[in-house]
Amino acid sequence: MPSPAPVAQFAARLHELTATEIVRAIDAGSTSCEAVARACLERIAEREPQVQAWEYLDPEHVVAQARALDRSGRRGALRGVPIGVKDIIDTCDMPTAYGTPIHKGHRPGKDAACVALSRKAGAVLMGKTVTTEFANVHPGKTRNPFDASRTPGGSSSGSGAAVGDWHVPLALGTQTTGSTTRPASFCGVFGYRPTHGDLRVTGVMEASGSLDTLGILARSIEDVALYRDVLLGVAPEPISADLAAPRIGFCRPYFWARLEPATQRLLEDAAQRLARAGAKVDEVALPGEFEALEAAHRWISGFEMARNLTWEIENHWERISEKFRNGRLKDGLACGYERYCEMRALVERLRRQLVSIMDGHDALLAPAAPGEATAGWDPVPHPWVYMAWTAMHVPSVTLPVFKGPAGLPIGAQLIAGRSEDRRLFAVARWAWRALT
Amino acid sequence: MPSPAPVAQFAARLHELTATEIVRAIDAGSTSCEAVARACLERIAEREPQVQAWEYLDPEHVVAQARALDRSGRRGALRGVPIGVKDIIDTCDMPTAYGTPIHKGHRPGKDAACVALSRKAGAVLMGKTVTTEFANVHPGKTRNPFDASRTPGGSSSGSGAAVGDWHVPLALGTQTTGSTTRPASFCGVFGYRPTHGDLRVTGVMEASGSLDTLGILARSIEDVALYRDVLLGVAPEPISADLAAPRIGFCRPYFWARLEPATQRLLEDAAQRLARAGAKVDEVALPGEFEALEAAHRWISGFEMARNLTWEIENHWERISEKFRNGRLKDGLACGYERYCEMRALVERLRRQLVSIMDGHDALLAPAAPGEATAGWDPVPHPWVYMAWTAMHVPSVTLPVFKGPAGLPIGAQLIAGRSEDRRLFAVARWAWRALT
Repeated sequence: MPSPAPVAQFAARLHELTATEIVRAIDAGSTSCEAVARACLERIAEREPQVQAWEYLDPEHVVAQARALDRSGRRGALRGVPIGVKDIIDTCDMPTAYGTPIHKGHRPGKDAACVALSRKAGAVLMGKTVTTEFANVHPGKTRNPFDASRTPGGSSSGSGAAVGDWHVPLALGTQTTGSTTRPASFCGVFGYRPTHGDLRVTGVMEASGSLDTLGILARSIEDVALYRDVLLGVAPEPISADLAAPRIGFCRPYFWARLEPATQRLLEDAAQRLARAGAKVDEVALPGEFEALEAAHRWISGFEMARNLTWEIENHWERISEKFRNGRLKDGLACGYERYCEMRALVERLRRQLVSIMDGHDALLAPAAPGEATAGWDPVPHPWVYMAWTAMHVPSVTLPVFKGPAGLPIGAQLIAGRSEDRRLFAVARWAWRALT
Repeated sequence: MPSPAPVAQFAARLHELTATEIVRAIDAGSTSCEAVARACLERIAEREPQVQAWEYLDPEHVVAQARALDRSGRRGALRGVPIGVKDIIDTCDMPTAYGTPIHKGHRPGKDAACVALSRKAGAVLMGKTVTTEFANVHPGKTRNPFDASRTPGGSSSGSGAAVGDWHVPLALGTQTTGSTTRPASFCGVFGYRPTHGDLRVTGVMEASGSLDTLGILARSIEDVALYRDVLLGVAPEPISADLAAPRIGFCRPYFWARLEPATQRLLEDAAQRLARAGAKVDEVALPGEFEALEAAHRWISGFEMARNLTWEIENHWERISEKFRNGRLKDGLACGYERYCEMRALVERLRRQLVSIMDGHDALLAPAAPGEATAGWDPVPHPWVYMAWTAMHVPSVTLPVFKGPAGLPIGAQLIAGRSEDRRLFAVARWAWRALT
């Protein structure tokens, strides 16, 4: 049984609670779904003019959902937890516009699987968070909550900013390149990209199906684990505690020299601190061939995006941003089946190779960004940090453990083997405690 | 250059032309998109009361599309070809109801990628073809065009019947178990299930993403190859001619004894005829472990379906058929992540094993059904014929080469290695010529 005392103590700042704390407080009767929802709405009302994380938000509808949950008394793993949903994910009661004027005002007929599973668990849908155009390169309106002159990162820009700025404790994003890892690093929150194929993406706009996954943005690793179980449609289990000395491979990938020197030092220092805290840390090198994954990722995603968006290309070409038209779409339309197959075969071979490389390790420690959020409006800088890992289909957790030279957050990435997501959470919690 | 003479000769029966013949005739000026569309509409008007292949069909809209194509004069790989689209595939100008009253009248905001690619190539969208409920077990209204007391097979029931009954030369289906292969066999048409992952399924209802593919129903192998290139978004290439003596492995899978004796004899006879025609035919055995793929398919698809349909389950449970609720959905809701992963690992291991098994063969010859269309209304009998092959992610072509004891069609299946779809077409054409 949770003690009511600590709940009461933060009752005035309900919007700062994690999802796990919210559920505990509501179940204990210390607060209500409505009170939590109103606290988050107040925070948003105060901060949204600067941050602009939300594409759609209807406070009355939020309060109505929360009241209905309070009335029903129904328990649930996310009972009363306000969540943000990236606006490429379908919702039956809110518009979904995929970040493009082409689909402005579009109303899907049903919830995406991930949204329906969230509601089933008792979540309150706060609203839709800003995405870049088609989850690609053209920016949305969101700014970095810690410095409005910088990007929040993208493409899950609004989800990263909303969680980092205490609008909601949890948000859904997606990742095809670095669209969850990057905003997690820039907005100082936990980011999770699951094993490819584990969490259903029905009702989520497909960018590139062979690379796309959902993503979770959260303020604690316990919340990440809880939400993953909800999205997996299984009974939630706490993070396993039996991890004495995690075996961590410190990985300085082929792009290491492109990181900012301060970030290199922060990561090297973190590896040493993890070792001092009792982890078995060694260096893990990626074979040179992994560099070829950047081109493979570019061709595979381009090929798939250019076909997925045929309707928009044929009917609304002029309303697609020039940057997207002249970038991935142009490449994709020019990519033939032979090159696509060749790139796919390369990626599959390296996936098998990575299994041996990771052998004997619980997780790899790797960069989550070259540095702090970049100035200006490019929401998706440095794709090379993310391309190889995403193509590998392995799960990743971004830990908000560093501060850069300007005092802004930088994340560290932990990566585990395919389907080892639970073990990854245990390592992430262990590392989080050791590093903070 | 096509000669106009043979075109003129079948001008009276335009609805019997293949897609390839239609494009050739229109390009040669021998007929028009409108004339072809009207011929198909007449055939449908005559036959639909018996066959009931169509969920949605608006003749005026069909003629309007055809006229616009005639006016534009735009060439295209499918110029003027009427196509049927399974009603789990989104269309921007026609309702899409996924075979369930829950979504009756639903209007998607855009075309599925495969529909947009078809239109881009100049196809005329005839209408939406009947699907079973959610492409699962509960039947639609369609009957077998050769015997109204029998099933057309499912779940792509309307697509199979519409092509087999000369309503349209081409139709889109999908396959998660045997949903294209089965109706192809029962309706006497070519069926094609592509290498998993090759053809985008954006805008197609996901049943079970790790197994789902599009499917093509056609009346010639040339049409299959042409339509695949359109759906792949590449310039069409004719089927390669350089196949002197295809190496065919005759496969009597573990379920061979469950086939009807007449079908066993037809397949054995076909293997002998292929050898006599010059193919190198040998026997290929599947290791006993392949039988475990039935359970793996059941658990994987159940797990994914039960999560994909969370919105319907939570909001419309009573409107889902009892057969689906008590079948795959019940299994899927009971399936945990550990079993799902275990089954997925088994399937992946056998996929790698199949590569060695198929080594040295251009294709395998295998059953496409236990016999003729079964009497009554079960649209998806004998899933065990299809489960293992579909789970292997390899491409398959169903050839309409046999007649059973009641004079009804039975197909033979040819299967090639992953991404060897083009070579499979060459073998299929060679085998078709040898067997008919």
